[in-house]
Amino acid sequence: MDIQTLAQNFTKAVAEDREADYKAYWADDIVSLEPQEGEMSRCEGREALEQKHAWWNQNAEVHSVNTKGPFVYGDQFAVQYDMDVTIDGERNQMSEVGLYTVKDGKIAEERFMYGSEDGVS
Amino acid sequence: MDIQTLAQNFTKAVAEDREADYKAYWADDIVSLEPQEGEMSRCEGREALEQKHAWWNQNAEVHSVNTKGPFVYGDQFAVQYDMDVTIDGERNQMSEVGLYTVKDGKIAEERFMYGSEDGVS
Repeated sequence: MDIQTLAQNFTKAVAEDREADYKAYWADDIVSLEPQEGEMSRCEGREALEQKHAWWNQNAEVHSVNTKGPFVYGDQFAVQYDMDVTIDGERNQMSEVGLYTVKDGKIAEERFMYGSEDGVS
Repeated sequence: MDIQTLAQNFTKAVAEDREADYKAYWADDIVSLEPQEGEMSRCEGREALEQKHAWWNQNAEVHSVNTKGPFVYGDQFAVQYDMDVTIDGERNQMSEVGLYTVKDGKIAEERFMYGSEDGVS
């Protein structure tokens, strides 16, 4: 599967919240990176990423997700996400970019790039 | 200047088409990458990138540009562009992501990630 097809299938599965389908594209040793400090800043391996998703599902009430993309260059693709989500009782509009690196037909790394509230327009 | 401030200043200058202002963030040895084949696939250095911009200004009639971002992780930031542009008499809606790498307070590399017509939604 070429990266364009993989990226489109993955993005569509995320947009439609088909967990089993998008998780099938994770490499077993996938690395997931977030800009903030703390234990969520780096998760290594499928088990750690499953736990991260479980945390998210328990703590975040997602009202809507819009995806735009994928955008491809070489072995990487980007997806731009807009989310309307309530965490800890606070409702926020979040904008971010997921930057995915593909190796051997699987997603070897995902890193999330954050917009600032006054910087995204 | 931290990367968040640099990224916001750069993105705002691009959105407002203030060429001198956004070019001030280019490193002298900036590398500019596009996914397609041919001479535009890799430009190295300020002079080559000036020529690329001159080609674009001569050949593209830009009706509108919308920027979304910047989105920051580490030494990189992303900007999502939507463009309404006529090239060679054909009008297109183009969507792409610019992924910028910052070193020593300047943009050392820009790479453009393309959406496919049926893949961007």
